Amino acid sequence: MTAAMEDYLHGVLSGNRRWIARAITLVESTRADHRDAAQRLLVELTPHAGAARRVGISGVPGAGKSTFIEALGTRLTAAGHRVAVLAVDPSSRRSGGSILGDKTRMARLSADPRAFIRPSPTAGTLGGVAKATREAMVVVEAAGYDVVLVETVGVGQSETAVADMVDTFLLLTLARTGDQLQGIKKGVLELADVIAVNKADGEHETAARRAARELSGALRLLHSDTPVLTCSGLTGAGLDEVWAKVVRHQEGLDLAGKRSRQQVEWTWSLARDRLLTRLRDSAAPVAGEIERQVLDGTLTPSLAADRLLAAFRP
Amino acid sequence: MTAAMEDYLHGVLSGNRRWIARAITLVESTRADHRDAAQRLLVELTPHAGAARRVGISGVPGAGKSTFIEALGTRLTAAGHRVAVLAVDPSSRRSGGSILGDKTRMARLSADPRAFIRPSPTAGTLGGVAKATREAMVVVEAAGYDVVLVETVGVGQSETAVADMVDTFLLLTLARTGDQLQGIKKGVLELADVIAVNKADGEHETAARRAARELSGALRLLHSDTPVLTCSGLTGAGLDEVWAKVVRHQEGLDLAGKRSRQQVEWTWSLARDRLLTRLRDSAAPVAGEIERQVLDGTLTPSLAADRLLAAFRP
Repeated sequence: MTAAMEDYLHGVLSGNRRWIARAITLVESTRADHRDAAQRLLVELTPHAGAARRVGISGVPGAGKSTFIEALGTRLTAAGHRVAVLAVDPSSRRSGGSILGDKTRMARLSADPRAFIRPSPTAGTLGGVAKATREAMVVVEAAGYDVVLVETVGVGQSETAVADMVDTFLLLTLARTGDQLQGIKKGVLELADVIAVNKADGEHETAARRAARELSGALRLLHSDTPVLTCSGLTGAGLDEVWAKVVRHQEGLDLAGKRSRQQVEWTWSLARDRLLTRLRDSAAPVAGEIERQVLDGTLTPSLAADRLLAAFRP
Repeated sequence: MTAAMEDYLHGVLSGNRRWIARAITLVESTRADHRDAAQRLLVELTPHAGAARRVGISGVPGAGKSTFIEALGTRLTAAGHRVAVLAVDPSSRRSGGSILGDKTRMARLSADPRAFIRPSPTAGTLGGVAKATREAMVVVEAAGYDVVLVETVGVGQSETAVADMVDTFLLLTLARTGDQLQGIKKGVLELADVIAVNKADGEHETAARRAARELSGALRLLHSDTPVLTCSGLTGAGLDEVWAKVVRHQEGLDLAGKRSRQQVEWTWSLARDRLLTRLRDSAAPVAGEIERQVLDGTLTPSLAADRLLAAFRP
């Protein structure tokens, strides 16, 4: 091990915030030499990781995620936990305003010595962002954080990517006027292990409770027993109950089994993604013409697939 | 074109049932020489295909699919349509009792000169079965069938495979006692373009109507406007309304656009599947040890993915 690597390792394991931040920057880097160093570091850190509760938190913009995480995180650190907040937001580069990019959003938690907040990496593709966040999770766990909250905004498949790296997936939603619920994207509902109707405070409390009841009924009708609660990131009401449901969900899990499956599936998913990227790159010069012939009917999809594969260079 | 190929082509285009059956057997075959002949035949048939309504019909065993298809198909042939019934059931080989394998299930439709019923291919993998059914669809459309019903039973991802090859996906479900609906698998609801609560007859009619109303309410709450109807395959009640919703769904579609996307996506999906099969086969001798090292923590998922790829032989 090089001296620099010793510094990283010792710095992270001793919980030094500057070294934690540097180590995460290293795993986020796409430079080849950084990449090698990052993987060597992760091999050293992995035996020290794995002891945290990993909780994904999703909700569309406006669902009150920052306020919720700030309030929940502050309660958890007050109870003696060390809380790391990571994020998966593949849109963060383009939009400019990444989730968690602006630390003033969580002013109190940012200043909390028992909390560590890291904005979403801006590596571009969802695969790249998710990889960096998974690896950052190893870093913060090795540094002794025993709760990892992974925030995601409802963009593309980011919820699935987060659900695949956490123990429990919490969906924040909102009541709204009319007979619909806000912030439930197609396909996300079935990822949720716990659902909380947020902003259940003041004049909105009654609507939030009714929404939670209706959603619970709808889920039961569809054979789901996902718990639906109400809470308020603003007043703190219901946060303990939401956290209790998260803990209870994990108690009902074969956690070791779930994590092993996630690790193996993640390994294959990386291999698949790299192979398919090569296929797309190799076939790029011919793909347009091949697709055109399929649409013309002059080539069957099966023959076209053979041609795409013929262009493949490993 | 060989003489044999001329026979196939002429036989199918003239609507000869024996040649249609033979052509489907050819596209189902996994023998290399058959595969080449099948693709050549499909290139010839494709310009004559594409004019049918393609409707997927799903529902768990007991939802009454056969009775429904027999009753709907008979109505459609009586109205002048030519109806082909295909199936995707990757379990058909193992279970022995494939869906549609037993033609006595649809005795009346089987004997109908304007209908053509073909059991699910038993090629084994879902990918293989779906490929054969897609190609059989080209055959029956070229033979002049203007309605293609693709049945699937709720096994694994078979519903997704069928939804990806049809214009409209119809889900059959059942009312049952208590506050749940029978036969709605996780993830299938959002594939459905039309939902019908079947067996709405006799003493079950009231329960079916209530179930339809509740499901409709639950879907609205979750931002879905999928129509929910009741029907009875047994008495024929509601079948015209269900078919009208199917037709209406297609009128609201950019059908040409949807089919083009399906064709292109299907082409890439075949290429991906073949490439990933090679990866799995190439990496098989080392995969177990690599996975073990990931679980041990001696190898990171990213390094492990590189090792799997290093074993790849195109």
